[in-house]
Amino acid sequence: MPATDEVQEIFSDEDVRCVKNGSPSQSDDEITDVRNISVVFEKPSADFKNVPSRDVHEDFFRKSVDLIMKEAVFKSTSSNGKVLDWHHPRELLRLFDFGLSEKGSTHEDLLKLIGDTIQYSVKTGHPYFVNQLFSSLDPYGLIGQWLTDALNPSVYTYEVAPVFTLMEEIVLREMRQIVGYPHGKGDGIFCPGGSMANAYAISCARYATNPDIKKRGLNGGPRLVLFTSEDAHYSVKKMASFLGIGTDNVYLIKTDKVGKMDTSHLVDEIERALGEGAKPFMVSATGGTTVFGAFDPLEKIADICEDYGLWFHVDAAWGGGALMSSKHKHILNGIQRADSVTWNPHKLLTAPQQCSTLLLRHEDILSKVHSTNASYLFQKDKFYDTRYDTGDKHVQCGRRADVLKFWFMWKAKGSEGFERHVDKVFDNARYFTKIIKERPDFRMVVDHPEFTNLCFWYIPPSLRGKDSNFDFNERLHAVAPKMKERMMKKGSMMVTYQTIKGLPNFFRIVFQNSGLEYYDMVHLVEEFEALGHDL
Amino acid sequence: MPATDEVQEIFSDEDVRCVKNGSPSQSDDEITDVRNISVVFEKPSADFKNVPSRDVHEDFFRKSVDLIMKEAVFKSTSSNGKVLDWHHPRELLRLFDFGLSEKGSTHEDLLKLIGDTIQYSVKTGHPYFVNQLFSSLDPYGLIGQWLTDALNPSVYTYEVAPVFTLMEEIVLREMRQIVGYPHGKGDGIFCPGGSMANAYAISCARYATNPDIKKRGLNGGPRLVLFTSEDAHYSVKKMASFLGIGTDNVYLIKTDKVGKMDTSHLVDEIERALGEGAKPFMVSATGGTTVFGAFDPLEKIADICEDYGLWFHVDAAWGGGALMSSKHKHILNGIQRADSVTWNPHKLLTAPQQCSTLLLRHEDILSKVHSTNASYLFQKDKFYDTRYDTGDKHVQCGRRADVLKFWFMWKAKGSEGFERHVDKVFDNARYFTKIIKERPDFRMVVDHPEFTNLCFWYIPPSLRGKDSNFDFNERLHAVAPKMKERMMKKGSMMVTYQTIKGLPNFFRIVFQNSGLEYYDMVHLVEEFEALGHDL
Repeated sequence: MPATDEVQEIFSDEDVRCVKNGSPSQSDDEITDVRNISVVFEKPSADFKNVPSRDVHEDFFRKSVDLIMKEAVFKSTSSNGKVLDWHHPRELLRLFDFGLSEKGSTHEDLLKLIGDTIQYSVKTGHPYFVNQLFSSLDPYGLIGQWLTDALNPSVYTYEVAPVFTLMEEIVLREMRQIVGYPHGKGDGIFCPGGSMANAYAISCARYATNPDIKKRGLNGGPRLVLFTSEDAHYSVKKMASFLGIGTDNVYLIKTDKVGKMDTSHLVDEIERALGEGAKPFMVSATGGTTVFGAFDPLEKIADICEDYGLWFHVDAAWGGGALMSSKHKHILNGIQRADSVTWNPHKLLTAPQQCSTLLLRHEDILSKVHSTNASYLFQKDKFYDTRYDTGDKHVQCGRRADVLKFWFMWKAKGSEGFERHVDKVFDNARYFTKIIKERPDFRMVVDHPEFTNLCFWYIPPSLRGKDSNFDFNERLHAVAPKMKERMMKKGSMMVTYQTIKGLPNFFRIVFQNSGLEYYDMVHLVEEFEALGHDL
Repeated sequence: MPATDEVQEIFSDEDVRCVKNGSPSQSDDEITDVRNISVVFEKPSADFKNVPSRDVHEDFFRKSVDLIMKEAVFKSTSSNGKVLDWHHPRELLRLFDFGLSEKGSTHEDLLKLIGDTIQYSVKTGHPYFVNQLFSSLDPYGLIGQWLTDALNPSVYTYEVAPVFTLMEEIVLREMRQIVGYPHGKGDGIFCPGGSMANAYAISCARYATNPDIKKRGLNGGPRLVLFTSEDAHYSVKKMASFLGIGTDNVYLIKTDKVGKMDTSHLVDEIERALGEGAKPFMVSATGGTTVFGAFDPLEKIADICEDYGLWFHVDAAWGGGALMSSKHKHILNGIQRADSVTWNPHKLLTAPQQCSTLLLRHEDILSKVHSTNASYLFQKDKFYDTRYDTGDKHVQCGRRADVLKFWFMWKAKGSEGFERHVDKVFDNARYFTKIIKERPDFRMVVDHPEFTNLCFWYIPPSLRGKDSNFDFNERLHAVAPKMKERMMKKGSMMVTYQTIKGLPNFFRIVFQNSGLEYYDMVHLVEEFEALGHDL
């Protein structure tokens, strides 16, 4: 194929020279052979030369783990430290020894690299990292993840992953029960991120429309159209394109001021697609939008899907965790009617990255949609019940055991622990909203947020009372980027900003760390004021 | 949507009752509040009640890590232990406390669960786990993974993952250099498994054929056809279906006896597709097939792709690691001409699960194919050079930092460490082949294997010299499943079996653990003989 157009590269030749051969030291000492052998195990006999020594590895392990626990686990999650130590990319290329070379490094050098990696990384477990739909470092989640890594499994057959195979089924069943599927029955899969979960949903919906698509593809059939709101996560469009449906065939439905899907516009758009001779097949509603944290009216959408025979998907990647709280789960009323649900425990429930699920009301559908019956992996003459081999349900082949960390958290806290966690972060969000509403220098974008992401403007002194000025919006638009720059360079907190619906840039703060208290809310508010007081 | 047909469930009602409320104990002692709070950090003040105590967490961390290191890292990788402790699914459901409940568990209970998880899991780091295209537990890889987990990043923007963003670019560039792309230029991405990497390749190839497909989808255009060998990994077909192309439009090309693609059949099939009015767009060649370990003739296939203007992809998920060895890299001659290459460091190079890459010769193509410019994440008014925000290149949104563990291994061993590792496993495979050829009770499926997966039959006493018997093949077919059952119940090793090309079931052993020595080869051979001596 012809090469695509060249673009200006982000790495200049000078950058490249700078990172090459970065690691300065390697001595041909006795531990060289240990480093070059990719295994940790004791030999049955000591008669062999150059045998990796368990002692050398164990010593390095202990030192590394001590360093990681001290610096990355405890220090990085303390509110006394900085959230980040900011450097521009080219600076960081010079500060950090990224370079790869022929020779290996000493254990001493490697320990320094661990320290540097921690220093220059953003502390996503810091209480004031409130920038994304994930944060916190759950101790039980982390131990579960470390255990998974040490066991290094891949989940496709029962024979190589017996514990994880059953654990997935049990956790998925429990989650389906919580969603409200009768007796927790149905299907489900852990997948690498909510975007992939949404992709699986599209794939199942497409199959439900016409199973022949699995074999024959989309070519030659009707034009498929799916519907989602203009505030839905971008993965719906992205995955529709990836799956060959095309971004043009994702019809975006208007949202109201608080970000909920306008169901009368949904009906109009379904009718439009039908009028065009296309085949509507799916509505992807959102339970907790990325920016406003809005919940689409699920019951109404379920009715419409029933009327038109459409697959009803709920992307509750972010909001799904609210189902753990009897006080707050009502915001997802109607989700029990969904054909499929995306729910990421790594978001509201703070499981480590990544822990995402797709849950389905239909039994055994994933395997019908995705199986290819590879004979080398899914032999039917095995001596155990091969219905436990779940690998042909998904498209990944090798797949990480993302279940263990979440299951371990669940064991540690119990369902009531998750409930308390969810109630706490809702309460914090309500408190934060209350205090910024009382202050003249903040203004809410959505007045009564339903969820724990809160969108607001900081109105700096120079703009207060100037709402009617012709350039008010334009000047306000420039405030958030400027404050974000200061915030990052100071490292005091991390909060994202964005513009949607043509609004001037506003901040979006996200709470999912139940270790934060009211005084942290006050601290965050005061930090905004400190960053913007002279603008 | 109507529910899909009910199938007999793998969990009976009795099973479900058995796992519910499994965890017996929870006392309302003082650490309850610690378990329910999802964060580890020190409070600025001690005036608050129910504050999570760092000491309690630290104590649990230390005990857990000690247990994981002792049992999962060191004991599980020792050849003295068993590879697995086999139980049928329903037995395991009764032995292991899977159940989730309202109340949490004590730290003591949690430590027991860690121990049980290790006990009942397959030891994939055991020297005699030679069952899959991954094995070993690399100590540097594991430390790199643990560090990644503690930092819990998601790689989409430079601002939240500065170190990992640059590290990915550096490692991908180095890998492209090793593939043979001029100056290491091009594009690339770390993705969750080789199947996903192959999916990205199909997505890019499709875009290169017609960029409008991104927006308009496959509907209404020509029927796209891709070509891969009958021995290629099943993900090519699976992903063609997922991407809307359909499994029927994957034309399978015959392979010769050793598993290499028959290029004259490839030309015939391309001509057939053209004759049918379809649009051939891609050939996916394989560098190291899953079963035989065969390498397709890449130079010839590159010529054909040039002639017909097709995208040339090489799925070297398994074989790519051979490029690290100057002695063995010739088996991938021609790979430098590929438009895209899948290469999984978690296979031959033993990086922890998962570490997969797609490498491309074309600069900036991933972003053209997959970008949707989500305004809340990829703001263009940031204060740094946003070309470093790589998140819009891929389809995942949140994405794990799979690079660190591999980079850390590379730092530890140097390129020469990887080279020695690769040479060692090739050498072991040669030795294993030599010794089984000398024995009358083994027969090779492929006489001169190119790679480190070796396929062979064990011919039990009752079948020796009976080749001409009418039921020889049928009886031989039953031998491997029987031996596998014994092997698993004994827990002495783990080797897979399968049938392809209508051959009777044969074993496939895979070497990628460079800690194994010649005496381990002898041990493995003798273990086969012990398992089959009375058949």
